[in-house]
Amino acid sequence: MQYYPNPDEGLDIHAVNKVIEEAFAEHGRGKVQMPPKVYIAFDHGDFRTMPAYVPSLNIGGVKIVNVHPGNPAAGLPTVMALTVILSPQTGIPEAILNATGLTDLRTGAAGAIAAKYLCARKSVVLGMVGSGRQAQAQLDAISTELAITEIRIWSRTEKHARAFCERNAGYECRMTSIEQAADCDLLVTTTPSREPLVRDAWVRDGTHINSIGADGPGKEELDPALLARAKVFVDDPVQAVHSGEINVPISKGLYSPDQVAGTLGEVVLGRKGRTGDREITIFDSTGLAIQDLAIAVIAMQKGNSVPLRFP
Amino acid sequence: MQYYPNPDEGLDIHAVNKVIEEAFAEHGRGKVQMPPKVYIAFDHGDFRTMPAYVPSLNIGGVKIVNVHPGNPAAGLPTVMALTVILSPQTGIPEAILNATGLTDLRTGAAGAIAAKYLCARKSVVLGMVGSGRQAQAQLDAISTELAITEIRIWSRTEKHARAFCERNAGYECRMTSIEQAADCDLLVTTTPSREPLVRDAWVRDGTHINSIGADGPGKEELDPALLARAKVFVDDPVQAVHSGEINVPISKGLYSPDQVAGTLGEVVLGRKGRTGDREITIFDSTGLAIQDLAIAVIAMQKGNSVPLRFP
Repeated sequence: MQYYPNPDEGLDIHAVNKVIEEAFAEHGRGKVQMPPKVYIAFDHGDFRTMPAYVPSLNIGGVKIVNVHPGNPAAGLPTVMALTVILSPQTGIPEAILNATGLTDLRTGAAGAIAAKYLCARKSVVLGMVGSGRQAQAQLDAISTELAITEIRIWSRTEKHARAFCERNAGYECRMTSIEQAADCDLLVTTTPSREPLVRDAWVRDGTHINSIGADGPGKEELDPALLARAKVFVDDPVQAVHSGEINVPISKGLYSPDQVAGTLGEVVLGRKGRTGDREITIFDSTGLAIQDLAIAVIAMQKGNSVPLRFP
Repeated sequence: MQYYPNPDEGLDIHAVNKVIEEAFAEHGRGKVQMPPKVYIAFDHGDFRTMPAYVPSLNIGGVKIVNVHPGNPAAGLPTVMALTVILSPQTGIPEAILNATGLTDLRTGAAGAIAAKYLCARKSVVLGMVGSGRQAQAQLDAISTELAITEIRIWSRTEKHARAFCERNAGYECRMTSIEQAADCDLLVTTTPSREPLVRDAWVRDGTHINSIGADGPGKEELDPALLARAKVFVDDPVQAVHSGEINVPISKGLYSPDQVAGTLGEVVLGRKGRTGDREITIFDSTGLAIQDLAIAVIAMQKGNSVPLRFP
C-alpha cells in the first residue's frame, strides 16, 4: 500500500481532462457503479463518503471529504479529502491519496470538458464570479481546451479578484462588476452563495455557464429564470437534485427535475448537447466519485509516494 | 495523520469489550449516526463502505472492507479492512488503521457482550460450530466475561478443530459431532454456511446462541425453526434483515422482521433481554460501523503508528 502526500503537484492538466472525460463517457454509457454520497453530520461540519468503481479504468475506491466552514479561522482548509484505492481483483487497499488538491483539479476538469462540448465557440471571453481555489482550477483546466481572449472577474472581496488577476498576468484579466462579468461567452461561478447572484437579464444568448459553487442543499448562484431559459446539463441527476444549482429552485417549485436536458456523460457521447449558437447552456456540477477515481489513476502514475505496511 | 499498521496486536480485550458495550449502549439510546453499509460489486468480490459517528466517544470515520472469496488461493486474506478516522471538530483525517484484525476483535467483543447479558449462567459449556479466526476471537472475548468449563467444537474440516483445541490447550477442549457441540449453554456459530447447519432439535432450552457467520444475503447457519422458538436480538435491524442470520428465513417467508425481540443496544440498556432460564436467546451479529470506530479508540491509544504528511 502506498501513501501519496501531494499527488496534485505537477499533474499534466491535459491528461487529467482526458481521463475525467473517459469517466463521464462511461457514466453516460451506464458502465460505472456510483451509489449516492453518504453524509455524516458533525456539530460544526460534516463529511461525505463517496464509493465508486470504474471498470474501464480498472479502478475502485472511496473518497472521504469533509466540509467545516469554521476551519479557516483555525488555519485549516474548509474542505479536506482522502481517497482510498482498492484492487478490483483482490480488494486489497493499494493506495491512499491526499485528495484535497485533487478535488479542485477534478472539478476543474469537469468544467473544462463541459466547456469544450457546450461552448458555442472555441475562443471565448471568460466571465468569472468568484476568485478562490476553484476559480483557479477552472481557469487552468479550461485554458487547455479553449482559447481565452479575456477574463472578466468579479469577487465579493475586491482584493481577491485583484490577486487573481495578478496571479494570472499572462491573460488579459480585468476586475469588473458582476453584471459585466456575466456579459461573456463562458461564465464560471464558484462562490458559496445561498442566494442567486447572476441575474437572468445580464446573460446574453449563446452563453455557456459552468455552475460550480452549489454543492449542498440551500446553495445557489443563478437566477432561477436563467435555468428556465437555458438547457441545463448535470453531472448526476440524483446528486444535482439533492445538492446542485437546481436544488433550491426545485425545492421552491420554480424548476422541475424533468426540465434537465441530460448529463455531461450523454453530452460527451454526443447523445445530448447544444443545438444552436443562441442557446444558453448550463453545466450544473456537484462532483462525482468517479472523477475522484479517474484523477487518482493519473496521480498514481507519478509515483511520488511512501510505502505503508499492509496487510 | 498517523498510520497504524498492526493496531490489533496486544490490545486489552477487556478494554475492547467495554468500549464496544458503550457503543452499543449509545446505539440503543439512538445517539449514533450510522447509515446503511454501501456495497460496490467487483467481478470476483465486493467492498463495503461503513461510515459512522459516535459523539459520546468523540469519534467519526469510515471502515472500508472487501470480501474476495478467491483470495486465499492467491495467498491473501478473503477479508481485508482499513478504517479512516476524522476529527469531528475539524474533519481532518487523523488516523488510518489496518483494520483486518480489528474486525475480528470487534466482532468477538459484540459476541462477548451479548453472552454476558443473554446467557442464563456465568459459567458455561461453550459449543462452537466453526473453528477459524472468528471462532478464536469469540473465545478470547467471551472468556473475559464468562467462565468456560468446557469447549465442544465441530468443524467441517476435522484438522481445523483439532488445531483449535491445540491452540487453546488451557481449556478443556473436545472435538465433537455438530450435534454434541450444539448441546451446550452457549453456542457460537462462525461458519460461512449458506444452509442451516444447527438443527432445532439439538438445542436445549436455556441456550444462548451467538450467530456470527451470516454476514451477507443468502448466508445462514441455524434451522429457521430455532429462530421461531427463540428470542432473537440483532445488532442493527436494517443490516440483520439484509444480511444477518434472519435474512434467508425472511426471504423465504419463514420468519418476519416483526418477530425480532430487540437490539443488543436495548439489551445493554436493560430495556430488553432474557426473561427466564428456559428461554433460548439468539444474538444475530452482522457487524456495525460503530464497533469499528469504538475499537479504533482503544487501538489508537497504544500509539504504535507511523506519521504521514497531511494536509
